Amino acid sequence: MLVDHRTGDDAGVYLLQDGLALVQTVDFFTPVVDDPEAFGAIAAANALSDIYAMGARPLTALSIAAIPEKDFPMDWAAAIFRGGLGKLREAGCALLGGHTVRDPEIKFGYAVTGVVEPERMLTNAAGKAGDVVVLTKPLGTGVIATALKAGQAPEEAALASQRSMATLNRIPAAVAQRHGVRTATDITGFGLAGHAAAVARESHLSLELRLADLPLLPAARELAPGFQPSGLKMNRQHFAPLVEDRAAEDEPLRALVYDPQTSGGLLLLVPEAAASALLADLPQARAIGRAVPAGPRAIVLI
Amino acid sequence: MLVDHRTGDDAGVYLLQDGLALVQTVDFFTPVVDDPEAFGAIAAANALSDIYAMGARPLTALSIAAIPEKDFPMDWAAAIFRGGLGKLREAGCALLGGHTVRDPEIKFGYAVTGVVEPERMLTNAAGKAGDVVVLTKPLGTGVIATALKAGQAPEEAALASQRSMATLNRIPAAVAQRHGVRTATDITGFGLAGHAAAVARESHLSLELRLADLPLLPAARELAPGFQPSGLKMNRQHFAPLVEDRAAEDEPLRALVYDPQTSGGLLLLVPEAAASALLADLPQARAIGRAVPAGPRAIVLI
Repeated sequence: MLVDHRTGDDAGVYLLQDGLALVQTVDFFTPVVDDPEAFGAIAAANALSDIYAMGARPLTALSIAAIPEKDFPMDWAAAIFRGGLGKLREAGCALLGGHTVRDPEIKFGYAVTGVVEPERMLTNAAGKAGDVVVLTKPLGTGVIATALKAGQAPEEAALASQRSMATLNRIPAAVAQRHGVRTATDITGFGLAGHAAAVARESHLSLELRLADLPLLPAARELAPGFQPSGLKMNRQHFAPLVEDRAAEDEPLRALVYDPQTSGGLLLLVPEAAASALLADLPQARAIGRAVPAGPRAIVLI
Repeated sequence: MLVDHRTGDDAGVYLLQDGLALVQTVDFFTPVVDDPEAFGAIAAANALSDIYAMGARPLTALSIAAIPEKDFPMDWAAAIFRGGLGKLREAGCALLGGHTVRDPEIKFGYAVTGVVEPERMLTNAAGKAGDVVVLTKPLGTGVIATALKAGQAPEEAALASQRSMATLNRIPAAVAQRHGVRTATDITGFGLAGHAAAVARESHLSLELRLADLPLLPAARELAPGFQPSGLKMNRQHFAPLVEDRAAEDEPLRALVYDPQTSGGLLLLVPEAAASALLADLPQARAIGRAVPAGPRAIVLI
């Protein structure tokens, strides 16, 4: 076993034989969008994301589903599975089986297995001072989902968020490996602050993040004051002590640093010499900061 | 992919490279016993069972848990995980991670990955007429769990059932492979009749089962008339058309043929010449019948 449930990494890693490791992860959750097919696709992209964040290639998946017995149209269940299967196919990942239970609350997700050569693995621990911090998707899925539940999300924001969550992290992971990146994580429930702090800790660095340069989903900034999910508040309580705040920016942006993401982007630590070529290959990605020698706090907002 | 979600086999199989296949399965369920540590152990033994039923060696597991937020002692949750971990250790299986959600209804289980050389795999499809049908655990866990919920299970029966469900199918699988067995399945939710019918269908055989020789948990026969789980009735409705009933035995025994099992035993089709040596190596196992050329029904009760 190379990485197990006790580390802060994105997935477990098991050395199967010389030069070949299994990478495994499991995630499932309640619907984050209204469209059942999109929900299935997002659940798959989200589960696959941990595999990509380790630099691995997904091979197989097992579905995990909880479907209500009553008042739930069977074609919705079929649409959820269809959305997931389409996304697995896009990833070249085979569905080997699954388990479905009856439950009043819908839940859906996957256990995913990938493979990686151990020396090509992306971890949280290989960053160097001077590395450029890159984020490959915009922030705000938690705030927008909360506004959506309240019927207050503009359609453009809801659709952009749905599209972003359903996008695989496959290409950014492949591009990052091609440019010599060794340090990556995916941004999920702990938000940018929580996941960036884990990378900083494991790499014995601090990360300076430029608030003004954070990529945001449409309307995320406007919705942030009024629609903070409980996870955002918990993240802020938990991670704010790890953050030194020197930024002149306004409060909504600061809140989004803690917004829990579903199927968020990759956070990459990119060797300085490779940064501009990597950014040219990933038009959606943004340079948002820089790794510096470890200071008193893991994260410095500037 | 060798076996996927569309076949009747116990787990999915993915050919990783020449001579090495991954075998994967996922299962989780609500508590079947009162003791949380025993529940965890049973959930692990049950999930591992599909791996053993394919002749594979378990390598890694991911836990899947739903834990109530309110009115649930945290040391119960710890006991469930501890019971599962102990059983994984007994199986030599590494816990790589997991996912836990808050949910009013407790659920627990695992996604498990094993490895097997494809030519050593146990399937449903390799049985021959003349093979001896062997069952490695006694029947009755569904009936006893139903009586337990009603407060009507004798303590001896409840404990024997708990012990049986927590027992790994590792040794029977290894012994079966050593004696040249190629056809096996594990008895779970569809009961003896349902799983035996799948083996009969895939092997193009019928299976004659001797009702009087079925191994039973203590008190299972006495409890069967009064404590039939809904799964038993559904199995009977579904599988009775596949069963030709020539037996002189009484109704309680007949009902137990359809009793859904949790972490049940292996059903083996054993070449006749190997049967007595195999039975000598597996003192808990019983010869319960014989494979015959395919007749009009998959199962014949005699």
